[in-house]
Amino acid sequence: MAANAEFRGMKVFLAQLNPHIGNFEANTARIVDALRRAGEQGADLAVFPELCVCGYPPRDLLEFDDFIRRCEASIDEIRRHTLQVAAIVGAPARNPDPRGKDLFNAAWLLHGGEVKAVVHKTLLPTYDVFDEYRYFEPAYAWQVVPFRGHRIALTVCEDIWNLGDDPLYRVSPMDRLMAEHPDLMVNISASPFSYGHDADRRAVVRGNVLRYGLPMVYANAVGAQTEIVFDGGSLVYDDAGGLVAALSCFREDEALVDTADLYPSRAAGRSAPGPMATDGPAAPPSAPPDILRHLADAQHIAQVREALLLGIRDYFSKMGFRSAIIGSSGGIDSAVTLALACEALGPANVRAVLMPSPFSSGHSVDDALELSRLLGNPCDVIPIAGPYDSLLHTLSPVFGDTPFGIAEENLQSRIRGNLLMAVANKFGHILLNTSNKSELATGYGTLYGDMAGGLSVLGDLYKTQVYALAEDINRRHGTIPANILEKAPSAELRPNQRDSDSLPDYPVLDPVLFLYIEGRLGPAQIAAAGNDTALVGRILRMVNANEYKRNQFCPIIRVSGKAFGVGRRMPIVARHLS
Amino acid sequence: MAANAEFRGMKVFLAQLNPHIGNFEANTARIVDALRRAGEQGADLAVFPELCVCGYPPRDLLEFDDFIRRCEASIDEIRRHTLQVAAIVGAPARNPDPRGKDLFNAAWLLHGGEVKAVVHKTLLPTYDVFDEYRYFEPAYAWQVVPFRGHRIALTVCEDIWNLGDDPLYRVSPMDRLMAEHPDLMVNISASPFSYGHDADRRAVVRGNVLRYGLPMVYANAVGAQTEIVFDGGSLVYDDAGGLVAALSCFREDEALVDTADLYPSRAAGRSAPGPMATDGPAAPPSAPPDILRHLADAQHIAQVREALLLGIRDYFSKMGFRSAIIGSSGGIDSAVTLALACEALGPANVRAVLMPSPFSSGHSVDDALELSRLLGNPCDVIPIAGPYDSLLHTLSPVFGDTPFGIAEENLQSRIRGNLLMAVANKFGHILLNTSNKSELATGYGTLYGDMAGGLSVLGDLYKTQVYALAEDINRRHGTIPANILEKAPSAELRPNQRDSDSLPDYPVLDPVLFLYIEGRLGPAQIAAAGNDTALVGRILRMVNANEYKRNQFCPIIRVSGKAFGVGRRMPIVARHLS
Repeated sequence: MAANAEFRGMKVFLAQLNPHIGNFEANTARIVDALRRAGEQGADLAVFPELCVCGYPPRDLLEFDDFIRRCEASIDEIRRHTLQVAAIVGAPARNPDPRGKDLFNAAWLLHGGEVKAVVHKTLLPTYDVFDEYRYFEPAYAWQVVPFRGHRIALTVCEDIWNLGDDPLYRVSPMDRLMAEHPDLMVNISASPFSYGHDADRRAVVRGNVLRYGLPMVYANAVGAQTEIVFDGGSLVYDDAGGLVAALSCFREDEALVDTADLYPSRAAGRSAPGPMATDGPAAPPSAPPDILRHLADAQHIAQVREALLLGIRDYFSKMGFRSAIIGSSGGIDSAVTLALACEALGPANVRAVLMPSPFSSGHSVDDALELSRLLGNPCDVIPIAGPYDSLLHTLSPVFGDTPFGIAEENLQSRIRGNLLMAVANKFGHILLNTSNKSELATGYGTLYGDMAGGLSVLGDLYKTQVYALAEDINRRHGTIPANILEKAPSAELRPNQRDSDSLPDYPVLDPVLFLYIEGRLGPAQIAAAGNDTALVGRILRMVNANEYKRNQFCPIIRVSGKAFGVGRRMPIVARHLS
Repeated sequence: MAANAEFRGMKVFLAQLNPHIGNFEANTARIVDALRRAGEQGADLAVFPELCVCGYPPRDLLEFDDFIRRCEASIDEIRRHTLQVAAIVGAPARNPDPRGKDLFNAAWLLHGGEVKAVVHKTLLPTYDVFDEYRYFEPAYAWQVVPFRGHRIALTVCEDIWNLGDDPLYRVSPMDRLMAEHPDLMVNISASPFSYGHDADRRAVVRGNVLRYGLPMVYANAVGAQTEIVFDGGSLVYDDAGGLVAALSCFREDEALVDTADLYPSRAAGRSAPGPMATDGPAAPPSAPPDILRHLADAQHIAQVREALLLGIRDYFSKMGFRSAIIGSSGGIDSAVTLALACEALGPANVRAVLMPSPFSSGHSVDDALELSRLLGNPCDVIPIAGPYDSLLHTLSPVFGDTPFGIAEENLQSRIRGNLLMAVANKFGHILLNTSNKSELATGYGTLYGDMAGGLSVLGDLYKTQVYALAEDINRRHGTIPANILEKAPSAELRPNQRDSDSLPDYPVLDPVLFLYIEGRLGPAQIAAAGNDTALVGRILRMVNANEYKRNQFCPIIRVSGKAFGVGRRMPIVARHLS
């Protein structure tokens, strides 16, 4: 920091909150409450996440003037509680220039009941799940924020992600800010979870510290907003790159740091480390065995489990729902979904429904019953033979003597969807979907049947990952019967059906899907990575031809770098086009 | 134009094509074929729409390097056919600067087998259905393109929409280009239809002509890409603002113009008209009676009808589908959907299925049968009483003695969805959905039941507009029985049910919905426009609480300025939040 006789450090309170989109009363109350706690701990400044006043991502709610007024009213309310402790909070700010977008994505410094500074975000993520350029004008001026003897380089989320030569960006707001000689970096973020991304985030935060030789306070949001999970993990690094604080992942947390402790390099008279290259994220794997190892990596799977639990829990709590219903087939997908739901919501709040058909094997019902016995959740058995016969009879004048086929298979799946929704509607449950990413990718599922549900728990996990997650769960709780783990996957919609009748084996399928969906490679490149050319063509055609099904699918809790849904926007093209 | 002794005009061929996203072979063949026709007519230059090489909007296909290579291969193929006639075609271009997005949205001038110029789009629409900033870097340099003695101000779509002081834009690429003294403006567009938007488009094109005193050749795309309809209507204006050519709307078309005919102002020795303000679009109505008039306006409805016919036709032809299936209830929504589908696909390719329940009135079946008799399309009657009883019986151990309610209502609707999908799967039909915008807005529909389908025909029409469209259809064909027009709307899922039991009357409901959805007003503003405050609150809560249902709905043919679906991105927030 600049030599300053008066400098005596300040106490910064990191408030890693879980906001709720559009719930201004609750968000404001939480912020005000955190300010009170910060005051009790002697803090000078409390730092809150990006857009925490309205919740992130507010999407097109930002286009409603009424919504922006409510953001402004919340800021008004919060600033009245900053007589003692100052606050840095994220909220939209209006763009006074009539040209360009109406809003900025801003960090507000509130103190003494006043708005002291409003800093605009420069780098607006507009890729994957992000649409910021849809709403926000990028900042085009950069100034440090003076506060309590500090000169703060205050930025919002992505603004710290351009470490000099990242080709994604044309501007480095941090480089611009350095022209104003700051002595402290503060970044407020809403950086979503994907497995392994926490390491990138630490590298970026520390990379800024090493590049600029300044400490950084990094406040990230936590909590799930429908499909997007924010994992928290807020950080404080000192000017030597030492980790001073690391907040919890996947839950609200807070910490108090004294900036006087953040300058060991300068205290020791050493010069700051100065610009320094940091390792970028590791290159994604491309050979099939490496991909399978990457997908099933134990550390990734453990993170995914926590993200899914938070995703389920927040979906229910924020929507005001209490209980879930799940179709329990005796297969591994429904078993893992059920186990996670029981852990997230409590077994008493999760109703399993077994719906055997004439083609269900006896062990399926037994395995599903055993699963619910081990989990301790209520379950019902509702056989579908009666409705199936009745529907076939009703359809017989139309179907005539056509042979059994896909229509009859889907009929069973849709009877199950109807029964689950009927019980859900009758008792106020929410149907959790059990489809996995491999099935969704290839269209191996029935619209309005097993694709029904309000939230997809496993839709961003390849089948390979579902197995790894089942093993992770069993290491913790042992609640998934071995039979369920060991049987060959089957939809049981015709006699002796196996997934492998229609799909390549999952260890062959999943790496191809990964290279296409996460890697966005073309068929020739995927084949060159060690996959059979004809098989690659067949798999890619399945993925493309089933876009129309995924288009009607429910939100999927996002755990990977590229999930189906809002972050992957593909046109529905002709079925014959690859 | 600049005084130029050699100038003798050139012949420009406008090719208003209907591209197919990702169908490079077909698109290239059509472009090459149009170049051949242009040559036969003595053209010097053929002008094609924005991104016509790959189809618009390609969405995340643009993130696949393989897709961009196929665009480049198409450009290579097309340029080999420009030995005689030059071509201006739309295709992505790679950004050689490693910073920023990987691509530009570009207009390519091809001639003599070579790429003569590549012009980048500056103003990238990133609102409503558009995501261009997700993929493209904006142009940051502007140069005219010399060709055959002309100096062409060549732009892409939105680049002409900043008429000097439009607050949406920070840059006017046209103003920048004028510094280079062009003598002709050429714009290639993919500008989607919404009712009334054609007048805005003419005003903008002519506004540029009057502002800069130069003629403009404006080539727009035509055709539907799933939900987005491009209506064509390409234009040529002379330098005095006179309309020289106006191509057809809603179908492929072409025209040849001689630029020697485009300079009447200069030929007459008059100075160009110079910058001139043009009327912006009319302010949207706010009083309920004005809104109802606006929605049911005969000219709007006639355009909407053509857009829906094109939307149905292109969805089927591009996806490779032949026949549709529709649940025919005897109500107005299914009647209008059926009439449109019969006109678009031919009555023999549209199968109506009547599925009376124990609560259906006798006249419903009679009316639906009469409708199909008048339309001449095949229909089946499949009563649902048997499956309904069977499902209720199957559920009775779970339902116990709970009273009849929403679960039993939805059960019937989902049996119909299952039957329709079963017949569709058996015979290869595509289910067309019959929900209207008022129902979708308020959540008055059953997920996986009457909300099922591959494409929604009426989902962007308020009920008020469905009535107006029915009248328009009857003026043309007289195919919708009077009974269907006159009966009170009902879902017929319980005895004597009426829509008005659950919803305000449509003439009260629709204006409130319009002010909220199209107008994005808050509750106080909507009430101030002449609507009951409590009712406004109730309606807005219904709209917000049902986001989760619309999230799983099929693509909706877009005919308004704000349709549900890809152009309206709302978070799924708590049901209790307004």
